[in-house]
Amino acid sequence: MAEAKLLGAPLPNLPWEDRAFASTEPVWRYSKNPIIKRNAIPTSNSVFNSAVVPFQNRFAGVFRCDNKKREMRLHSGISINGLDWSIDEGPIEWIIPEGVSKPEYGYDPRVAFIEDRFYITWCNGFHGPCIGIGWTQDFQTFYMLENALLPYNRNGVLFPRRINGKFIMLSRPSDNGHTPFGEIFLSQSDDLVHWGQHRWVMRGEMPWESTKIGAGPVPIETTEGWLLFHHGVLTSCNGFVYHFGATLLDIDMPWKVIGRTQSYLLSPQVHDEQVGDVPNVVFPCAALADSATGRIAIYYGGADTVTCLAFCHCAEIVNRCLDHA
Amino acid sequence: MAEAKLLGAPLPNLPWEDRAFASTEPVWRYSKNPIIKRNAIPTSNSVFNSAVVPFQNRFAGVFRCDNKKREMRLHSGISINGLDWSIDEGPIEWIIPEGVSKPEYGYDPRVAFIEDRFYITWCNGFHGPCIGIGWTQDFQTFYMLENALLPYNRNGVLFPRRINGKFIMLSRPSDNGHTPFGEIFLSQSDDLVHWGQHRWVMRGEMPWESTKIGAGPVPIETTEGWLLFHHGVLTSCNGFVYHFGATLLDIDMPWKVIGRTQSYLLSPQVHDEQVGDVPNVVFPCAALADSATGRIAIYYGGADTVTCLAFCHCAEIVNRCLDHA
Amino acid sequence: MAEAKLLGAPLPNLPWEDRAFASTEPVWRYSKNPIIKRNAIPTSNSVFNSAVVPFQNRFAGVFRCDNKKREMRLHSGISINGLDWSIDEGPIEWIIPEGVSKPEYGYDPRVAFIEDRFYITWCNGFHGPCIGIGWTQDFQTFYMLENALLPYNRNGVLFPRRINGKFIMLSRPSDNGHTPFGEIFLSQSDDLVHWGQHRWVMRGEMPWESTKIGAGPVPIETTEGWLLFHHGVLTSCNGFVYHFGATLLDIDMPWKVIGRTQSYLLSPQVHDEQVGDVPNVVFPCAALADSATGRIAIYYGGADTVTCLAFCHCAEIVNRCLDHA
Amino acid sequence: MAEAKLLGAPLPNLPWEDRAFASTEPVWRYSKNPIIKRNAIPTSNSVFNSAVVPFQNRFAGVFRCDNKKREMRLHSGISINGLDWSIDEGPIEWIIPEGVSKPEYGYDPRVAFIEDRFYITWCNGFHGPCIGIGWTQDFQTFYMLENALLPYNRNGVLFPRRINGKFIMLSRPSDNGHTPFGEIFLSQSDDLVHWGQHRWVMRGEMPWESTKIGAGPVPIETTEGWLLFHHGVLTSCNGFVYHFGATLLDIDMPWKVIGRTQSYLLSPQVHDEQVGDVPNVVFPCAALADSATGRIAIYYGGADTVTCLAFCHCAEIVNRCLDHA
Amino acid sequence: MAEAKLLGAPLPNLPWEDRAFASTEPVWRYSKNPIIKRNAIPTSNSVFNSAVVPFQNRFAGVFRCDNKKREMRLHSGISINGLDWSIDEGPIEWIIPEGVSKPEYGYDPRVAFIEDRFYITWCNGFHGPCIGIGWTQDFQTFYMLENALLPYNRNGVLFPRRINGKFIMLSRPSDNGHTPFGEIFLSQSDDLVHWGQHRWVMRGEMPWESTKIGAGPVPIETTEGWLLFHHGVLTSCNGFVYHFGATLLDIDMPWKVIGRTQSYLLSPQVHDEQVGDVPNVVFPCAALADSATGRIAIYYGGADTVTCLAFCHCAEIVNRCLDHA
Amino acid sequence: MAEAKLLGAPLPNLPWEDRAFASTEPVWRYSKNPIIKRNAIPTSNSVFNSAVVPFQNRFAGVFRCDNKKREMRLHSGISINGLDWSIDEGPIEWIIPEGVSKPEYGYDPRVAFIEDRFYITWCNGFHGPCIGIGWTQDFQTFYMLENALLPYNRNGVLFPRRINGKFIMLSRPSDNGHTPFGEIFLSQSDDLVHWGQHRWVMRGEMPWESTKIGAGPVPIETTEGWLLFHHGVLTSCNGFVYHFGATLLDIDMPWKVIGRTQSYLLSPQVHDEQVGDVPNVVFPCAALADSATGRIAIYYGGADTVTCLAFCHCAEIVNRCLDHA
Repeated sequence: MAEAKLLGAPLPNLPWEDRAFASTEPVWRYSKNPIIKRNAIPTSNSVFNSAVVPFQNRFAGVFRCDNKKREMRLHSGISINGLDWSIDEGPIEWIIPEGVSKPEYGYDPRVAFIEDRFYITWCNGFHGPCIGIGWTQDFQTFYMLENALLPYNRNGVLFPRRINGKFIMLSRPSDNGHTPFGEIFLSQSDDLVHWGQHRWVMRGEMPWESTKIGAGPVPIETTEGWLLFHHGVLTSCNGFVYHFGATLLDIDMPWKVIGRTQSYLLSPQVHDEQVGDVPNVVFPCAALADSATGRIAIYYGGADTVTCLAFCHCAEIVNRCLDHA
Repeated sequence: MAEAKLLGAPLPNLPWEDRAFASTEPVWRYSKNPIIKRNAIPTSNSVFNSAVVPFQNRFAGVFRCDNKKREMRLHSGISINGLDWSIDEGPIEWIIPEGVSKPEYGYDPRVAFIEDRFYITWCNGFHGPCIGIGWTQDFQTFYMLENALLPYNRNGVLFPRRINGKFIMLSRPSDNGHTPFGEIFLSQSDDLVHWGQHRWVMRGEMPWESTKIGAGPVPIETTEGWLLFHHGVLTSCNGFVYHFGATLLDIDMPWKVIGRTQSYLLSPQVHDEQVGDVPNVVFPCAALADSATGRIAIYYGGADTVTCLAFCHCAEIVNRCLDHA
Repeated sequence: MAEAKLLGAPLPNLPWEDRAFASTEPVWRYSKNPIIKRNAIPTSNSVFNSAVVPFQNRFAGVFRCDNKKREMRLHSGISINGLDWSIDEGPIEWIIPEGVSKPEYGYDPRVAFIEDRFYITWCNGFHGPCIGIGWTQDFQTFYMLENALLPYNRNGVLFPRRINGKFIMLSRPSDNGHTPFGEIFLSQSDDLVHWGQHRWVMRGEMPWESTKIGAGPVPIETTEGWLLFHHGVLTSCNGFVYHFGATLLDIDMPWKVIGRTQSYLLSPQVHDEQVGDVPNVVFPCAALADSATGRIAIYYGGADTVTCLAFCHCAEIVNRCLDHA
Repeated sequence: MAEAKLLGAPLPNLPWEDRAFASTEPVWRYSKNPIIKRNAIPTSNSVFNSAVVPFQNRFAGVFRCDNKKREMRLHSGISINGLDWSIDEGPIEWIIPEGVSKPEYGYDPRVAFIEDRFYITWCNGFHGPCIGIGWTQDFQTFYMLENALLPYNRNGVLFPRRINGKFIMLSRPSDNGHTPFGEIFLSQSDDLVHWGQHRWVMRGEMPWESTKIGAGPVPIETTEGWLLFHHGVLTSCNGFVYHFGATLLDIDMPWKVIGRTQSYLLSPQVHDEQVGDVPNVVFPCAALADSATGRIAIYYGGADTVTCLAFCHCAEIVNRCLDHA
Repeated sequence: MAEAKLLGAPLPNLPWEDRAFASTEPVWRYSKNPIIKRNAIPTSNSVFNSAVVPFQNRFAGVFRCDNKKREMRLHSGISINGLDWSIDEGPIEWIIPEGVSKPEYGYDPRVAFIEDRFYITWCNGFHGPCIGIGWTQDFQTFYMLENALLPYNRNGVLFPRRINGKFIMLSRPSDNGHTPFGEIFLSQSDDLVHWGQHRWVMRGEMPWESTKIGAGPVPIETTEGWLLFHHGVLTSCNGFVYHFGATLLDIDMPWKVIGRTQSYLLSPQVHDEQVGDVPNVVFPCAALADSATGRIAIYYGGADTVTCLAFCHCAEIVNRCLDHA
Repeated sequence: MAEAKLLGAPLPNLPWEDRAFASTEPVWRYSKNPIIKRNAIPTSNSVFNSAVVPFQNRFAGVFRCDNKKREMRLHSGISINGLDWSIDEGPIEWIIPEGVSKPEYGYDPRVAFIEDRFYITWCNGFHGPCIGIGWTQDFQTFYMLENALLPYNRNGVLFPRRINGKFIMLSRPSDNGHTPFGEIFLSQSDDLVHWGQHRWVMRGEMPWESTKIGAGPVPIETTEGWLLFHHGVLTSCNGFVYHFGATLLDIDMPWKVIGRTQSYLLSPQVHDEQVGDVPNVVFPCAALADSATGRIAIYYGGADTVTCLAFCHCAEIVNRCLDHA
């Protein structure tokens, strides 16, 4: 089996901590989790499901901050090391084109750098859960575009470059409540406004993802295919349990699944993941990758309350996908 | 109040029956309903929710024929007078472009003639209820296009011409079961493949449409706006009751509602509408209009079992919309 | 067993039809049902669940007329013979005391004559199903009082005189949807405004009333106790089926059940009861009684669509209650 | 394809009516349906889902009679021609062995003659729906045995002879409500008391049987296999619709399906099947077969209200099973 | 903005702990929570949702003690400092007037001192959740009154004095399960037995209270209005989360909301609130106030398992209500 | 009251820890819980609900190990002291008789030694939850038998010897989801293959077991009757809470309940029981008993994640059953 290489840029300041000596875990937690606590800003009830990208030799991010009214809001933030974050106290103010509705709320953002700017996708409450798109170049001024797809849809994630000349988005259409079902689809566009050529990508197959699945961080390009972390939900008699695993998608036909982990890579097993506003949740929304070393850092929400970090090696995860491990 | 005129072509052979002498009903039933019985072809369990258009001085149609396996299938048919129909015994065979999935099933078709061909939209079962588009020029060879929108969506209806240079489609996003909610949205496209600039159009407002609504026949152009018949559903303690009413949409900004009937125009009140595979359903999918007289003939399904016909005068219905009658 | 006598006034013009020669049914249908059709007034979708009383040697009534918006409204009406009705085209306009909300809607009225006026109780939509009370002396001017009880409650029925100096009301507290449960309670008042001394009366015991029960017409005073007709609901795999039976309550402690029919007295078995907006419903809201003959005429809704009439002899029904037949 | 023959005894007095001249239906209705009306005995609300067998040159049966309390009861009956029935006014009184509970209720009986007596299986309410077994030799004295299987189970049907030395029963385990799922299993026994060697037989595959299925009449032995009529349920937005089809099971390994009709053979399409206590139900519980002619008469319940009759030819149905028609 | 003053008596022995130096929280937890552990008496499974009042220079209370059968019971208790409690091992025995049913169970008590005695309101299981009223003068002998309102109702809370000559009660009508909806109403009485003049007060408006709300401790009189702490419930995909906030009601027309906190004041964020028999619950049932200092101590249940204490300053909370903070 | 004695063999190496000095708890936890952690083998997500028996002067067991695919699997294990366990990394491979389906999954095993071998019963996924039976003599080779009972059934538990010459099994029939109801039944067999003579044993009576109950460890024979620990489930607004109590069954007629604890013996009150994949679960599947001392060690699952141990004295628990304590 070939050793998968990351195809992106090197990222020497990637946050990192080596795997513990005796451990064989494919994904391991940062020893100082959570990196962002629930009360990180004065008005916040919780900060989680957050999207982080490299930005001008430092890091920037878009954060889901639920306030103490329990409203769901997006805030931007900045960090030198990717671990200690300074988050704006006010939510992002979008510059909105005529004819587009103001977002009712904002949750579960992803940020993808494509060509010359950072695109944000998130769930925005246009008559129900609906995928909004916006962009920024400086994490200070944010421009909203037309909503990408009709409601009722969540977990909209852009690929970090055009494929076959098209922008590509993953999404998870479903209903307008605490959805008990959901599969991943892919849609294509020339202009980020009109979407079509929809393709079905995959459903939950293993027990840990049997209720529903959704794309996690922006896919990571490797020599073997696009590496996608995705969350999967199992329904216990006490509600949903959120895990995550990984999938390898074909580079040129990214609706084709090349391989996929049968075991979850991480499940809620420590306090910040088991106890909080929604017990038993790990939910990844962003990943940083350093092509020089193959290291990947995954940002994930814990118990819908705090932001945590975990680490892995690209080649190990890709092999697990190919081995259906 | 101006008298609304139909803007389309004359249709001298429109099926028609005058309103009964003493009646003041805005929409009245054909005295020989149902025009198509449930066993119209040897394999059919029911024939209903059917789409009819003028075709070469006669009429053609696409019919929902559920067979005796209770599979939902589309069949084409032909008629000289719009009342007596010859329906193909075999279902429509689509010529399908590469990359597009074969339809799992077909139900609730609409047919719109735009520019040079007949476009069919229907619910096709691409990983759930999903709106397919296809076209024909002869009702013998049928070409499928890319699916228009992501699942889960039903009641996709095209406008009969471009507006502001765009193709326009109404749809009703919802879930994948016997949906208990749903509102009408509008989407726009340059190429019938990529859709965007989604606009919210309307929700159920009156009790008869309080559970959900959906567009019915292809909108009819009038001097006062687009005339849209739409079905509305009320939930009784014994299930859903389907009625229909009408809405007038702005000619150039068809996501704007100009007027709308507050009362239903037709509700299930006679045997073929009250008794059948799904009791208490009237469901319109097609309408013919004669601009010379202002007459409109509406084809609707009865009790999800048979195909029925009703009639009205354009100006009367438009006035009811404007009066919110 | 003593022969029960009616204690009220004679009512020589009571509508009546003898039991068919060969029949042994305790309650029999009028041969010309329905007496009021669904389109009795121009705006009506249905007229059913209606309350009728003797009034100035004729009859007056309060009718549930759902209009073609499917709004639920109360209308008053007048009749010489109790069979042919003239119903006001406009709904009842209430004169409402300060602080009391205007009714959102009106359904399932009962009318009780107490002392010097006619009291109407109905379900009025004060933040959910809630029992309103009003009164009239002429069936032209209607005065509303404070709502009697908190939501969520339906089937509020007054006794036709004070008992132990108190006004007495039966009601059926439950929830705000298509309630799947419900038992009858009794409340007491000095002033028709403040209610207390609540007593539990009975629950559904037999299969035909196993989902829920509710009081029907105003109780009828007999030598053996108060005769109460009540509806009972059974849940089939296709929804609710409404039947009715009878109960005998203690004259002085009307929360005490003396006897009760184990079999239903009437169930939906003919077209107007089996087919309509809500299939399989017989729902009694009013009864007239002639103390000279022991005859009782029961007004009931059929399939939530039309108004029907049935007949019985007081002594026979009382005996069935006492026999638990 | 070989012409299937019936292997049982001739039954010259089988009730029969030829197929209408122009009809090609595989199963056709008796022109005088219903053969038993809902009020066949004074206390009955409905008589349906009834089991009929040849008995001493005449016919005997066990009938589901719901009384006017809506209690579900089994009654026996007798007939000279299989069409006109005399039904006992009182329910069957079981002689019950020590340790076995008295049945709470009785519904949906089947009767199988095995070796020297008639065995009745039915749903008896032993702490929920549960399959009881009993026997009679004269349809006057009835002996109950131990309950065959644990609750929650319905549609228990015995084969009419031992296979490989074992008694064989089909059943449909499920839950204790209006079950939305269910598949057919087979169990084996030496003594009719202890059951084991359970085998899974089949699930609903076609849309008309997609919610649940259940065995109908006692299987009929043919040269090609056991012919089993089974009901199948589809869930519409207004509840369950019951159809029936047929399956051919292997003679020696009756858990193996040899063939099966993909289309239903009968669905509720006429008044007595579409309108009644449970609209849209045809439910077969018994069949008579004449090996001399290949004729089969099927007794089925209509709308959970009345008893109907339909006819078919053995070879035609077997061929439809083998053709998956 | 005027500084709100408490209008009641001084309470120099109010339990109190200052806010932590660096904290800006409006409500802060006692550092030694829980003050009552789950096994406070030998038979208890949990002690929570408890009502405390000043009594003879000490404190008395009524406590919800669920026993190890998980029966819900009310016990009385006594304390010198409001922190260390001696709870009776046996439940309260009510002296019950004729005609009133013995309580099935007891939960979520409130205690209000009015004129000359302590009134207890609680949920007592009279045919479902129902608000009982009783009184005591010595916390040894307890007298029950008529139930105040019909089922199904919870969170009945009396005001501590008559208003406009009337007793006033808040309540939250709903259903008989784990209610997914509910709004606060107000009822009035001359005699604590008959209740009427019902007024709607408020619904949940912010996300943290979007499922349902209910009154908490007895309202506290201030110069700006009645200060009411109320709980609010949000439904996550893993069940209910209980928070609490505050509302200011008009002194003379207490159904009028003057102001209300938009943010919750406390949410489950520490172990005793997040982990227990019902995770993620803070539920206030009592508050003590010292008019000399403006200090308020709030007793609240943690995770339906233990009793906790929190503190605040009257003026700060009132200002937050007026600011809609 | 007689002091109950254990009737089995002495077990001098029973794992044991005395009750803490000040405690009066009838069942007390091992101070070093959990004895088996969730990651006990490399592939395990959790190890819980495990069955332990004495075996060749040591202990053997069958363990539910959910792997990181969240598949439910049975593994065998061995231990010298009953505390430290060596668990096979691979799941049990069954030798399966012809005609029996391979288990889809395995969970919640029990092991009973009867006559000359160890019988395992578990839930095996034969078309839904279904009770499998197998046996081993060496915990290395495992033979599967016919499934004992039809789906949908869980918590199948054998008695450790024949009674009246019959094998005896307890089970809990229910449905195929997260069952919200369920009672214990008993079935009898001569051959472990065919089961019959079903008897109803008991339902949940106290609040802690009001949703459903199920048998726990193999019943323990005492001089007073069979001692059965059983779990009981209460539904809070945040899901199920699992407790356990005990029941005493008649020695010769084990379907007769002699006594039963009204209070639970253990409820989830410490971290490993309150926090994990399913919060708030204690679930006993095995017990060891030493007849020389009357000591019992109970193995139970904590939060569906880890394996824990608790202790009690036989006579104390039997007395609590007899006292209905």
